[in-house]
Formats: sequence, structure tokens, C-alpha cells
Amino acid sequence: MALNETHRVEVTSWVESAQTPGSDFPIQNLPFGVFRRTGRHEPPRVGVAIGDQIVDVAACVDEGLLSGVSLEAGERCRLPQLNDLMALGPEPTSALRRALGDLLRVDSAAYHDHPGIARRVLVPMYEAELRLPAVIGDYTDFYASIDHARNIGGMFRPNDPLLPNYKYVPIGYHGRASSIVPSDTHVRRPRGQIHDDPDEPPFTAPTKRLDYELELGIFIGTGNALGSPVPIIDADRHIFGCCLLNDWSARDIQSWEYQPLGPFLAKSFATTISPWIVTLDALEPFRAPAYVRPDGDPAPLPYLLWDVDQRRGGFDIRLDVYLRTAVMRQRRQDPIRISRGRFTSMYWTIAQLVTHHTSNGCNLRPGDLLGSGTISGPDPDSRGSLIERTSRGREPIRLPNGESRSFLEDGDEVIMRAFCERPGFARIGFGECSGMIVPAL
Amino acid sequence: MALNETHRVEVTSWVESAQTPGSDFPIQNLPFGVFRRTGRHEPPRVGVAIGDQIVDVAACVDEGLLSGVSLEAGERCRLPQLNDLMALGPEPTSALRRALGDLLRVDSAAYHDHPGIARRVLVPMYEAELRLPAVIGDYTDFYASIDHARNIGGMFRPNDPLLPNYKYVPIGYHGRASSIVPSDTHVRRPRGQIHDDPDEPPFTAPTKRLDYELELGIFIGTGNALGSPVPIIDADRHIFGCCLLNDWSARDIQSWEYQPLGPFLAKSFATTISPWIVTLDALEPFRAPAYVRPDGDPAPLPYLLWDVDQRRGGFDIRLDVYLRTAVMRQRRQDPIRISRGRFTSMYWTIAQLVTHHTSNGCNLRPGDLLGSGTISGPDPDSRGSLIERTSRGREPIRLPNGESRSFLEDGDEVIMRAFCERPGFARIGFGECSGMIVPAL
Repeated sequence: MALNETHRVEVTSWVESAQTPGSDFPIQNLPFGVFRRTGRHEPPRVGVAIGDQIVDVAACVDEGLLSGVSLEAGERCRLPQLNDLMALGPEPTSALRRALGDLLRVDSAAYHDHPGIARRVLVPMYEAELRLPAVIGDYTDFYASIDHARNIGGMFRPNDPLLPNYKYVPIGYHGRASSIVPSDTHVRRPRGQIHDDPDEPPFTAPTKRLDYELELGIFIGTGNALGSPVPIIDADRHIFGCCLLNDWSARDIQSWEYQPLGPFLAKSFATTISPWIVTLDALEPFRAPAYVRPDGDPAPLPYLLWDVDQRRGGFDIRLDVYLRTAVMRQRRQDPIRISRGRFTSMYWTIAQLVTHHTSNGCNLRPGDLLGSGTISGPDPDSRGSLIERTSRGREPIRLPNGESRSFLEDGDEVIMRAFCERPGFARIGFGECSGMIVPAL
Repeated sequence: MALNETHRVEVTSWVESAQTPGSDFPIQNLPFGVFRRTGRHEPPRVGVAIGDQIVDVAACVDEGLLSGVSLEAGERCRLPQLNDLMALGPEPTSALRRALGDLLRVDSAAYHDHPGIARRVLVPMYEAELRLPAVIGDYTDFYASIDHARNIGGMFRPNDPLLPNYKYVPIGYHGRASSIVPSDTHVRRPRGQIHDDPDEPPFTAPTKRLDYELELGIFIGTGNALGSPVPIIDADRHIFGCCLLNDWSARDIQSWEYQPLGPFLAKSFATTISPWIVTLDALEPFRAPAYVRPDGDPAPLPYLLWDVDQRRGGFDIRLDVYLRTAVMRQRRQDPIRISRGRFTSMYWTIAQLVTHHTSNGCNLRPGDLLGSGTISGPDPDSRGSLIERTSRGREPIRLPNGESRSFLEDGDEVIMRAFCERPGFARIGFGECSGMIVPAL
């Protein structure tokens, strides 16, 4: 979609909390998710976030409040996952989101013509349980931050931090779909094989080097048929939207197991995502040029290169990681921010990830999830994992309350947040991607 | 289950083709699959193979022919995938298979009491389309053959063929579930980045080094909850059964992309499986000791070590790879066998794979698929991929008709077969896992 009037900061909603300063969910955002009212025997269904409320989309359909929405799109919002809506492709979803925007505007005729409508279509977030937004058939994790690749590569291969393929291949690997959990799910510290003394055999123990990785999650909308690559000019049409993703990692398990086939049990114990999917429509004002490659870097190969993508395939998203320890929670201290990254530092655009993924004919399906890879920038403060922030644990982070952290301890809560800002446009946010570590069995 | 009278070769069926010498599907096998009658508007449903027929399990339920089967198990055979039956665990499935065996025996009272029953419950295989037997939530590919790991490792890392973790860690990685296809699906030659001249940049082209990998597929039955490892003594109870698996691989794409996170597009374009799942019950007579580690090899770590698994966690399965080129097809020549492997050569048992996979708390779900990794033995004839058979293409295979192959060419058909034999017991087979290469787009 192009930028239009609905993106402007002046547009407001009759849902008053949408105008709360700092709200992640003004009327310009309207991210999709799946919710269930707590304490009721109702199946989960599709919702859209606004302020501190969830719009029950199926209820809006039942009240006849959405104009210009296909019957098909409306009906699919009764389902307990977004996959079927996602499969319809960008136009029906955009039309649905536009209709919801029209309904929620302060000057909405439908709102004023239907007294009591707020009570019938809104569910307060505190009364709802948020679910995984989609059945995730396959989850792929990329490695699109060159600073992260350099930082991590330097630890595992000091002489060879950035491999020769990095600037040509958007490196990725298959992740585990079954252990993806929604924000606020506790994460149990995994046990695994650890080999920390080269002269001794490995042993099994709870990981001592538990880490997070700050990533953007990219949900696929329409899929592609097996054998039919998605050209770069069509890639955006296959993206439904984005969320936050924490690729929890056990670094000691990882360093012992990862050769030659890549990370496995070091990451498959849990991956947390935020429950709201921010659409590309909502992100439109925050598009940015693709990473500007320094002189000497090769251009992307032709199948990954499109001038429009180079000009506006990036997204200016700020991403923060907060930590709250058990001690801080006990003392009722707020989480403190330990890093801030920026998605414009990524070497590859999300369109390039989709096109590369399908370039061999691999089929993506609606609801499939891509992780961007850890979002790290050039500054120490912008490193998106503890192993990078603490130089492999050698330089622990000092917390204001006197505690310090090399890696995560039991009771630590990692909270990721992200937002986009631009003068003249409403600030939009991603909500929280949060998880607390519970002790190993 | 223990060995019992039903495994003996003397037991025969009123389905005459079950007694055809060399049939993969005598009454002692009874593997599960999902089929649909061709040319009818019926949804797919669960079937069991016998001789050249498929038993329509739901039809048997409707006719009241199955005794000792739970209503739940029977009803789940009306579904278009086995996941729900798998979720019930080993006892209901064993009872169902036993009841089918009773019905199909030549001395079955039910058969003799119900004239015309064959017509109502059997579907000839040639009238049916076989589907993927389950919705595969996650697919994990292991690397359990030490000979394969040595052969491949020696090509990619001549000085370091077997990495130090191999004898401790059942190495595995996440594979792509969306591109798993049933036997007989054509496989399109993938395109990808190839970097065959170190002094030049990579380019994109159809792979020139297309290969197969002979593997056993292991379907998970009951799953485990996230955070709850499966102890080795319970691992078999989570295995529904086995099929054949061809892990198609593009070696040129693989060697350029696989560092540092493992194979990705080199394998995600297609994975073929045979449609019939041979149960552990049927494989019972062919159990064998686990791999006998030579002196100097470490014992498995305690979580992977159980004396019963060491004594009988192996399976004596012979696995053959056949090739038919376009020229052979044109001349109506039979496929020729190019390798024969044996599953007893695997360094890790399938129970060890399950236990290792879940040792960090990773959850397996009913219908998840594990690949064993390429099954190669110590002899050149037992190498389960062309790259091994031809020493990386340097020693092409000479075919009897004068053709030769370093890697697969368009029109080549790769056919995998497997069987178990033991005196006093009926030979059982796995059916075919077959796929033909079609040209790149």
C-alpha cells in the first residue's frame, strides 16, 4: 500500500486508550492476534489490538459493522488461528484492516449509529489470554545482521569471524516449530551436553550459559507452491506482518553440538514470540532504504536485487531488551533496559529473506514464521544477545541494584519491546515479548 | 510387544496376494497409511496394506469386524491423517493392528461369517492414491551413521572427518517439513547459489550435483510435553513406526551455504517418504543389538544408555537403492540396484535419537518425523548417497547399459526399497520410496 491519510498522527479513535501517549496500539497500528476471554468457554478467535482493548473481529462481522470486507475474510476471523485469513493474501487483509480502522475512528458513522457497540465488540486486554497467532508449520531462523555474524563468528572462529558466503547468501537454518510459545510463557532452563574442559569427556547438566536473542519474527501470508520461487518483486505480497521473537539459546550446549549441522538442542527448548502481528500496511511510514553496503562489498546477486527493495525494503524499527531479575521483582523495581537495536542495521531485507528461502523451490505456507536473526548493530549498546553484550561473559553487565549478569539466571525475566517513530506519524509499537526463566528439572 | 505366534511365517491370510513370494505386505506386516480411492469424491482415510490390497479400516469398523478395538481408535481411522491415531499411544494402535490381523487370517471367523466382506473392506492398491500418512509438524534429520559421517566429513574437512562430538552427541538438525512429499512425486531440480571457482563470485544455476540420501524415517506416536524429556526406557513408546526417506541433496549448493548454520536450501526443495508406516510391532522379530562400539570409543552418556536398548535397540533392515535412467525407461529396462545398506550399521539407536531430541525439554508431537541420516556402511557398496558411492563424483558409477552417473540427471528415477528377513519369520518390506528428477525451471 502507499502512505495515506490514515497513517497520520491526527487520526484518532473513540477508544480513548488508543490515544494514551506511548501506547503501542494507536488506530494507525491495528495488529492482528488470536485471543480468548479468560474464564469463558469460548474458543479462541481473531482479534485486533487498539489501546488497551481487543476488537473481536467476528463480533464486528455479526453486527454488520465492517464495510468492504469479503465474507470469506470475515468468516475466517472466527477461527482459532490466523492461517486461513493469511492465506487470502494482502488485499482482503488490507481491506479488513481498513474497515476496522473506519469503524474505530472517532468520526465513525457506524459507531455513532450503534449505541453500546463498544461493549459488544471490545474485550479489555486484561480479560483475555493471548495465544500463538498462527499454527506455525515451519519456522526458519536467519542470520541477517552482519554485526551479529561478526560478533558471534569471532567467538567461535577468531581467525575467521565472517565466512566468505555471508555477503552473498542470506544465511538461515530450519528452527523448531513445536517449541514456539507466546509471550509470558515461562522458559525452563534446559539440560544438555556440556564440554567445557577439552581434556575431559562431556557431561550433562543444566546450561550455565543461557542467553536470549532479540529478533524480528516475520509471518508468511500467502504461500507459494512447491517448485515455484517467489521473485523479489513479489516477496512483500507473501508477508503478513511482523512480531518480536526471542530465540533463547544455551551457549555451552551450542558450542559443543553445532558442528557440522548447526544449532539444534541449544535452541529448540523454547522460542518466544509477541502475540500481535504488526502488518506491513502499518509499517509503511517506517520503510527505509536497504542496508548500504560499504565499498568493496559485492552487490546482491540478481535474484535478490530490486531497486524498489533497495530503496525501501528496510524498516526503521527500534528494538529494546529489558531485564528484570528476581531481586528486582521482589523489590518492585522496574525492568531496566540493557540494549537498544535498530532494524535498519540488517544486511538483508525481509523481502530478500523470502526470495532466497524460496529460490530453490521450497514452499512457504500461510503462518510459517521467519526469524530475522539476532539484531545487533555496531555499538556495544546495540548488541542483541548477552553473549555479545558481555563479550562471551567476560565483561558482565552491572545492574543499577548492584547485581551483575554474564548469562541469565533463574528468575530472570527478559522483555523485548519495539516501536517505530517518525515526525507527523503516530508512534506504533509491537507490544511485549517476555519470558521468565524457571529452574531446570 | 514380545514376539508371538502372529509373527511366524506359518500364519497366512485369505487375501491371497499377501502370500505372493517377495510381497512387502504379508499379514505379519500390516503397515499404516492414508489413501484415497482415485476417481471418487471421498476424503482420504486410514488404510492398512496387505498384499496388493488396502484394508479400509473405517469400513471394517462400520461392518463391526474389529474386536478389542477402542471406539476412539476406530473413529480416528476416518480422518485424512494418522496424527490422531498416533496420539493415542502404543496400546490402542497395537490392539487395532491385532484386530486387523485376526480379521485377515485365513481362519478368521469374522471373514467366514460375513460373505462378500472382501469387496466391502478391501481397495486394490492400483485404484488408490497414497498420501502423506501424517501432517508432519516438525521434521528432524539426524546423522546417525558413523560411516556416512566419516565419508562426508572427509570430503568437506579432509583433516578432520569425524568431529570430536560425534561419539557423544547424536548429531541432528531441523529439516523442512513443508516440502516432504509422498513417493512418486516428481522432484524438480533446484536452482541455487554455486561457488565452484574460489577466484570468482558465486552465480545461480540449476544444481549440477543433485544427489539422494537413503534414510529411515521414524514417525513419532505419542508426543511429550514441552519441558519433559523422554527417558531412554520410554523412548520406544513414543515411536509409531518407520518408513523410507530420501533426503534429496544439492551438493554444490550445500558446500557453499552450509557454514556456519548447517544445510538449508541444499535440502529443503524436497524430501520423499514411502507412504506405509511399518510399526515397531511388525519389526519386533528383526530387533538386533545396538552398534557395538570398538575399543576406545566412549560409552554413551548415561541418559542415552539402557541395557535393553543396547541389547535390542537396533533393527536388522536391509535397504536398497535402485536407479532407472530415462534411457532405461525408454528401453523398458528394469531399475538396477546401486547400493545395499543395513540399518544395524547405525551408531545410534532410534530410541537414542528420541531421547536425545527431547533431553533439553523439546516437545515432539504425534506425526513428527525423524530421519535417521544417510545409512552407509563400511563397504563401498553400502554407501547410501551418490557423493559417497562415486567419491565426490570422481569415480562415476558405470551402469550395465553403458551410461554412467556421478550425480543425478534429469529423468533419473531413484527407488528405495527395504526389507527384513529372518528364518522362521515372514519377510516384511517397506514398499517403495521413489522419485523422478524433472528439469529445472
